[in-house]
Amino acid sequence: MRIFELAREQAVIASVEAVIGWDQETYLPPAAATYRAAQLSWLSAKAHELATSSQWQCALEAAEAADTGAEVTRHANLREMRRAFDRATKLPVALVAREATACSLAKHAWAEARERADFASFAPHLSGLLDIAREKAERWGYPDEPYDALLDGYERRTSTAAVAALFDSLRPELRRIAACAVEVSAGHAPTLPPGPYPIGAQRRLNAQIAADLGFDFQAGRIDTTTHPFCTTLGPRDVRLTTRYDEADFTSSLFGVLHEAGHGMYEQGLPQADFGLPSGSAVSLGIHESQSRLWENHVGRSRAFWLRWYPAAQQCFPQLAGFPLENFLRFLWRAAFSPVRVEADEATYDLHILLRFGIERQLLNGSLAVADIPAAWNDAFRDLFGFTPADDRQGCLQDIHWAMGGLGYFPTYSLGNINAAQLHAAACRDPLVAAATAQADYGPLLAWLRRSVHAHGATLDPADLIAQATGSPPSPTDYLAHLQARYV
Amino acid sequence: MRIFELAREQAVIASVEAVIGWDQETYLPPAAATYRAAQLSWLSAKAHELATSSQWQCALEAAEAADTGAEVTRHANLREMRRAFDRATKLPVALVAREATACSLAKHAWAEARERADFASFAPHLSGLLDIAREKAERWGYPDEPYDALLDGYERRTSTAAVAALFDSLRPELRRIAACAVEVSAGHAPTLPPGPYPIGAQRRLNAQIAADLGFDFQAGRIDTTTHPFCTTLGPRDVRLTTRYDEADFTSSLFGVLHEAGHGMYEQGLPQADFGLPSGSAVSLGIHESQSRLWENHVGRSRAFWLRWYPAAQQCFPQLAGFPLENFLRFLWRAAFSPVRVEADEATYDLHILLRFGIERQLLNGSLAVADIPAAWNDAFRDLFGFTPADDRQGCLQDIHWAMGGLGYFPTYSLGNINAAQLHAAACRDPLVAAATAQADYGPLLAWLRRSVHAHGATLDPADLIAQATGSPPSPTDYLAHLQARYV
Repeated sequence: MRIFELAREQAVIASVEAVIGWDQETYLPPAAATYRAAQLSWLSAKAHELATSSQWQCALEAAEAADTGAEVTRHANLREMRRAFDRATKLPVALVAREATACSLAKHAWAEARERADFASFAPHLSGLLDIAREKAERWGYPDEPYDALLDGYERRTSTAAVAALFDSLRPELRRIAACAVEVSAGHAPTLPPGPYPIGAQRRLNAQIAADLGFDFQAGRIDTTTHPFCTTLGPRDVRLTTRYDEADFTSSLFGVLHEAGHGMYEQGLPQADFGLPSGSAVSLGIHESQSRLWENHVGRSRAFWLRWYPAAQQCFPQLAGFPLENFLRFLWRAAFSPVRVEADEATYDLHILLRFGIERQLLNGSLAVADIPAAWNDAFRDLFGFTPADDRQGCLQDIHWAMGGLGYFPTYSLGNINAAQLHAAACRDPLVAAATAQADYGPLLAWLRRSVHAHGATLDPADLIAQATGSPPSPTDYLAHLQARYV
Repeated sequence: MRIFELAREQAVIASVEAVIGWDQETYLPPAAATYRAAQLSWLSAKAHELATSSQWQCALEAAEAADTGAEVTRHANLREMRRAFDRATKLPVALVAREATACSLAKHAWAEARERADFASFAPHLSGLLDIAREKAERWGYPDEPYDALLDGYERRTSTAAVAALFDSLRPELRRIAACAVEVSAGHAPTLPPGPYPIGAQRRLNAQIAADLGFDFQAGRIDTTTHPFCTTLGPRDVRLTTRYDEADFTSSLFGVLHEAGHGMYEQGLPQADFGLPSGSAVSLGIHESQSRLWENHVGRSRAFWLRWYPAAQQCFPQLAGFPLENFLRFLWRAAFSPVRVEADEATYDLHILLRFGIERQLLNGSLAVADIPAAWNDAFRDLFGFTPADDRQGCLQDIHWAMGGLGYFPTYSLGNINAAQLHAAACRDPLVAAATAQADYGPLLAWLRRSVHAHGATLDPADLIAQATGSPPSPTDYLAHLQARYV
C-alpha cells in the first residue's frame, strides 16, 4: 500500500500549490508577485522529485506485482498511476526545464506581440515551443500522429483521428445552425435594460442560485478575480472565482454557473480518494461537460428562468418592465465574433474546429509557423464569412500556445458534445425530466453524481460517456440541442 | 554561501506555511479544516527536516569556519543561525512529537475545561506540558533558572531575573496609576453613541488611516477573521486581519492600528534579506512594541484625533453631536476586568505581572499545578481588589499554556515598556516631535525604520533598545506616559 501513501503525499503538495495559486489570483498584493513564483517553483520541484523518484518507482512496481486485478478500483488506480509515472519519467529533466523557460519567455513575447498585432515577433517563440512539443510527442510515443501524444495529456486515450471524425460530423450542421442563429438574432436582439446592476446584489443572487443547484458552500466559496476559474485546494475545499460587470449581471452569473459546474464535479468526486485517480477528475473534456451542462443546458433554459427571473427582477428593479421572453432572447442572442472568449453557444465550436485544424497541421508538418496568419484568416473567412481585422483579433488572441498548451483546444468542444449527450441521457430518466422541467435540479445532480462523478478517473473519457449514456461519444444530442434552441 | 541558500529555501517553506495558515483563518470553508492540518504538518515536517539536516549543519560549519567577523551583518546572521540550529537540534524528535500531541490534546481539554470552569479536568494536561517544558529547558540549558530557557525562545538573551526586576520596578506605580484611572473613569465614563456603525464605512476609514500612517497596501492587505493577527506571507506580502463590531467602530480600528504596527515593522525589515536573521523580526517584545506604539501612543493621542475625528464623524453621522472631548474620554476609559483581552491600557500589565509570577513559580517548582486556581485568585485579589467569579474568568481564560507557550506572557509587557521608551526617544528628535504634534507620522515611521526595523534580528532586544534610545530597557518612559494620560 506504500504507493498509495506516496500518492497522498503528492496530493498534499499539489493541494498546497493550489492554495498558493488561488491566493495569487485573488488576494495577492501587487508587490508580492515575484516571490510567489519562488514559492510555486519550490513546490512543483518537490512534487516532481517525489513523483519521479526511485522510491515511487519501487513502490509502484511492488504494488503492481501484488495486484491480482480483483479489486477493480485498486487496479484502475495502479494503471493510471503507471501511466502518469511513465509520462513524467519519459521526459528528461533538461527538457522539462527547457520548456518552462521557453514558456515563460513566450508568454511575455505573446503578450507584447498581441498588443502590437505583430505575429512575426512571436513566431520564433512558437517555433521553439513546437519543437519541444514534437520532442515530447516522440518521447511519449503515439499510435498514428504526434498530436495523439499531446491530446492524450488532456483527454487520455483519445485519438486525433477520433476527434477529427467527431468534428467532421459536427461541422456542416454546426455551420448551418450558427448562420441561422446569427441571422435570427440580427433581426431582433433585445438589449438588457441599462445598469448599474450592483455588485452586492449580483453576489447574493449568484450564491443563492449556486447553492440551489447543489454547490456546497460548506466545502467551497466564490471570490473575485480577473480570469475566472475553479480550483480545488483539498478535499471539501473547492474555490470558484468570477468577475463582475455592473452593466450586465448575466456576465458574473453565467461565469458562476460555469465554474459551479466544474466545482460540483470536484465536490462529487470520492473525497476519501483525494489525490488518487479514483478521486480525481478524468479529463478536461469531461470537466468541461459539467461546466457547460450547468451553464448552457440548465442556466440558459426557459424552465430555469421561469423559476429564477422573479428573483432576478427583485434584485434588479430595472428588469421589472423587461419581459421574460425578451430576457430569454437576450440570453440566446448569437453573433459572429472574431474572438473565441466572446463567442456565444451557437458559434463557439467553429472557433475550436479552426484551432484544431491548425494545430494538427502544425504538428504533422504540413503547416509552417510563418504561414499561421494566412491559414488562420483563410479558415476563419471560410467559417465566419469575414476576415479578422488583425492578428490580435486572429491567431494571436489566445494564450494557450504560449503556455505550451498544444492539444488543449479540442477539449472545449468535446465538453460541449459530452454535456449534451449526458444531459439528454439524464433526461431520459423520467424523475430527472420531471424535476428539471420544474427547475428542481436535485435529481439531475444525483444522476451526474452516480453516472460521472463517482467514477473519478477510473474509466477513460469515452468509456465513461458510453457507460453513462448507452452510446459512444457522438454529436447527435448536441446538434439536436442547438437546433432546438437556435433554429 | 551555501548556508544562506539553505536559509532562503527554509524561508520559502515557512512562507508557504504562512499562506496556508492565513487562508485557514480568513477564507477556509468549514468542511475543509481537517485536510488543512495535513497540509500544515507536511510543510512543518519539511521545514524541520531541512533546518536540522546534516546538510544544514555542514554548510553552517563551513560558513562559520570562513567567517572573519569583518562583515558585521554576515557575522550576526551566522551567530543567530547557529543559535537557532542548536535550539532546534538539542530537542530529540520524539520530544517534539510528544509536545505536538500533548498540545493538540491540551487545546481541546482546555476549551472544554474553560467552558465548564473546571480546572481539575485541565490540570493533568497542564502537568504534562509543564514536564515537557522542564525537559526542554534542561536540554536547552539556562544560566540561572529553567524559565530563562523558555523566555529565551521569545525574547532572546533576556534573563528571568532582568524581567522580574523590570516588573518589580513597574508594579507599585502601575497599581497606583491603574487605581486612579479606574476611579476617574468610574466617575464619568461616556458611552459611544449607539450603532450601527456600518462595516463598509469602518473598512474604508481603517484602510484610509492605516495607509496614512504608512502601511503599504501595495505590499499588504486587511481581511476579516475571528482572532485578529498579522502575518507575513513573503517579502512585500504582509496581511493584517481584524474583526468588526457594528456597535463600536473603535474595536476594528484599534485592532487595525495594532496589527498595522506589527505590519509596518515587517514591511520595514530589509526585504532582500527575507528569511535571514538580518531580514527578520528580533523578538516578540520588540514586535509588540511596534503594535503598541501605533495603537496607544499614536492612536489614542489627542493630536491623532484632532486630525481624524472629523473623518470619523463624516463616516458615522451619529458622532456629529458627540464632542471630541467625550470621545477621548471614551477611548481613555479604564476598568478592572477579570479578563486580560478586555483590559485597557491602564490595567493591562497587572494581568501580565500576575501570569509571569505564576509561570515562574511553576517552573522552579514552588507552585504545584493543583494550586494554580488558589494562587491565581489570591494574586488577582491583591492586584485588582476582587476575586474572579470562576476559573473561566480566572486561570482558564488564556489559551497560551495549552499551546505550550510558557514564557510568552511577559513579552506583552515588555512590548508596552519598549513602545514607550522608543516613542519618547523618537520624540526627542525635534522633527519627529513637531510632525507628530500635527498628526503627521512620516518622520516617526522613518525614525522607527532606521532605529528598529533596519536592524532585523542582528541585535539582541535589549541592545536594540539601548542603541535606539540611549539607555537600557527601563519602565520610566512607560510610567510617565501612563501617568500623563490617566492621572
